[in-house]
Amino acid sequence: MFKAKVRSDTLKGLVNIISTLVDEAKFNIGPEGMSLKAVDPAHVAMIELDLKKSAFEEFVADETSIGIDLDKIRDVLKLASSGDVIQMEQEDNRGRLVIKIGNIVRRMNLVDTSTMGDPRVPELSLPANIEMGIGEIQKGIKAAESVSDHIALSADQDSFELYSEGDTDSVSLRLEREQLIDLKTTEKARSLFPLDYFSNLVKAVPSDTVVRINLGNNYPVKITFDIADGNGKVGYLLAPRIESD
Amino acid sequence: MFKAKVRSDTLKGLVNIISTLVDEAKFNIGPEGMSLKAVDPAHVAMIELDLKKSAFEEFVADETSIGIDLDKIRDVLKLASSGDVIQMEQEDNRGRLVIKIGNIVRRMNLVDTSTMGDPRVPELSLPANIEMGIGEIQKGIKAAESVSDHIALSADQDSFELYSEGDTDSVSLRLEREQLIDLKTTEKARSLFPLDYFSNLVKAVPSDTVVRINLGNNYPVKITFDIADGNGKVGYLLAPRIESD
Amino acid sequence: MFKAKVRSDTLKGLVNIISTLVDEAKFNIGPEGMSLKAVDPAHVAMIELDLKKSAFEEFVADETSIGIDLDKIRDVLKLASSGDVIQMEQEDNRGRLVIKIGNIVRRMNLVDTSTMGDPRVPELSLPANIEMGIGEIQKGIKAAESVSDHIALSADQDSFELYSEGDTDSVSLRLEREQLIDLKTTEKARSLFPLDYFSNLVKAVPSDTVVRINLGNNYPVKITFDIADGNGKVGYLLAPRIESD
Repeated sequence: MFKAKVRSDTLKGLVNIISTLVDEAKFNIGPEGMSLKAVDPAHVAMIELDLKKSAFEEFVADETSIGIDLDKIRDVLKLASSGDVIQMEQEDNRGRLVIKIGNIVRRMNLVDTSTMGDPRVPELSLPANIEMGIGEIQKGIKAAESVSDHIALSADQDSFELYSEGDTDSVSLRLEREQLIDLKTTEKARSLFPLDYFSNLVKAVPSDTVVRINLGNNYPVKITFDIADGNGKVGYLLAPRIESD
Repeated sequence: MFKAKVRSDTLKGLVNIISTLVDEAKFNIGPEGMSLKAVDPAHVAMIELDLKKSAFEEFVADETSIGIDLDKIRDVLKLASSGDVIQMEQEDNRGRLVIKIGNIVRRMNLVDTSTMGDPRVPELSLPANIEMGIGEIQKGIKAAESVSDHIALSADQDSFELYSEGDTDSVSLRLEREQLIDLKTTEKARSLFPLDYFSNLVKAVPSDTVVRINLGNNYPVKITFDIADGNGKVGYLLAPRIESD
Repeated sequence: MFKAKVRSDTLKGLVNIISTLVDEAKFNIGPEGMSLKAVDPAHVAMIELDLKKSAFEEFVADETSIGIDLDKIRDVLKLASSGDVIQMEQEDNRGRLVIKIGNIVRRMNLVDTSTMGDPRVPELSLPANIEMGIGEIQKGIKAAESVSDHIALSADQDSFELYSEGDTDSVSLRLEREQLIDLKTTEKARSLFPLDYFSNLVKAVPSDTVVRINLGNNYPVKITFDIADGNGKVGYLLAPRIESD
């Protein structure tokens, strides 16, 4: 059993982030909220997402899991204005999801989750820890996209840098310790990433969000941030590209 | 002879509605205003439109008829701001239409109307009569478009419903008697329609418009509404789809 | 050596105008400012542009010339908001251009200018001189584009006219002497031009700009106007089309 009411903005934020990796997602639902673990088809990135009961206007659920085609949720969100509340309920008998928004009722078949496992999230020890507003990274990404399809993230005790190098041009965004909320690192850390994955995530995050970045040397980067006014959190893990010199 | 001044918004509203069915239209003009009857090439829908002299800023005309390529009027409307007045005049000698907007003059050849008859509007006796704002229907259409290319309209003494069913999902918009301006029906009425035709019309109508819907059982639907601040009216007739069970 | 700071709006205005003719441009730079002469690949139009030192927030330069890929400048401008200041500096050793905007640094290779000459600007004696706001011409262009790909400009002692004639329709924009800032002509002048060239320039000029138009009979038109709040000026020369009757 699952029945909830949620603000359209909360649902939209959620879908924007998950859609950067997958088209269909399995949500694990329980009395205290819902969670999700998803990995993209190429196994390059992974999302771990938790949303507490308090993120919802109403939330009643037993332990269950539902598989959702995210495009269908996007369709429903197009019908909603910013303040609208969307009601979701799992039909007991047929197992469909019934969504109500205003006077409109949409009944949708769920996606079969029997073949959708929960990926194992690796434990990583990453030496550098950076905290900053995502807005500045969004600008850097936009600049990088016109010169390359890779981006290097690096940090030392003084600064954090995004760097992209193409055939003729390069772009760098360097932020000194004072321009960051926090910067701690036990050693110099630098890894190269596919720009499209990094960019898709960064663009899906609201621009006033504070993110924590954990970085290593030729190691995955972990990006962590709150969603739903602190009633949920996201961990995003992106595998590095091996640099060929 | 035909000479008129009209606000660009009035002309735009007119063109938006007629363009849902035809690219070229024959306007019948007389001293008291203009009217039009048009049927789409596939003979699925029909529009009947009347615009009184009072819808115009100025209007002087003898009995005449002019054939207009609606795309050309769209071109002219792109030059107009919301409050602008557009002047139209039929050239006596060459039979062209001269349109003035600001300092710009466009002379356009008319479309030959000799082969464009006035379709006969069938008399229909439709048991259900619904009056409501079109805004709610516009939302329902948007929801329906993502699941099917058909839409069923139905009414009984308690409610009016739009219903679309696709392979996996369904959408319904159900409005109770209290949510409608008026609902009268002598029997249960239900007909299925091609969603694209219905949707094109519904989207072309300003969202604050009140429409009257006359509905039967596997019968055409008739949608009637005012245009040009009550100085004109439109009747739209759409043929049903036969349901195959 | 070349080092400057410039408001993004100034740079954007510049790039918009030059891009109507060329993708890459050679800027001649000296202690007092920069200038450019460019002709399009088909040799139909020519731009002559001067920008004084005073158009910049800061400007220090020796005599030099730099070749720039305008698309790269467009990329950089996408990162800037309206009030932002962009810093440009030529790297001494590698001859690259370093652009800074906020915390972002973009290093870009310059275009080889050794094969880019400065076209010779012809001396023309054109009998008609018209001064007017470009806004009205922008409206006329928009109207003309839907009927033809040519436009005739003509002037006599009473008026200035833009006229386009297609197979079935014509568009004219006629402005009387009182509707213009200035109109002087020693004889009737009329020339026909390719609409795309004329239109691209006209659309690239801010709509509140006053332009001077010098017109002859089957002769190039010269359009002159200020940029960068009067700290720069542009001369644009467009070759006529020979009318075939």
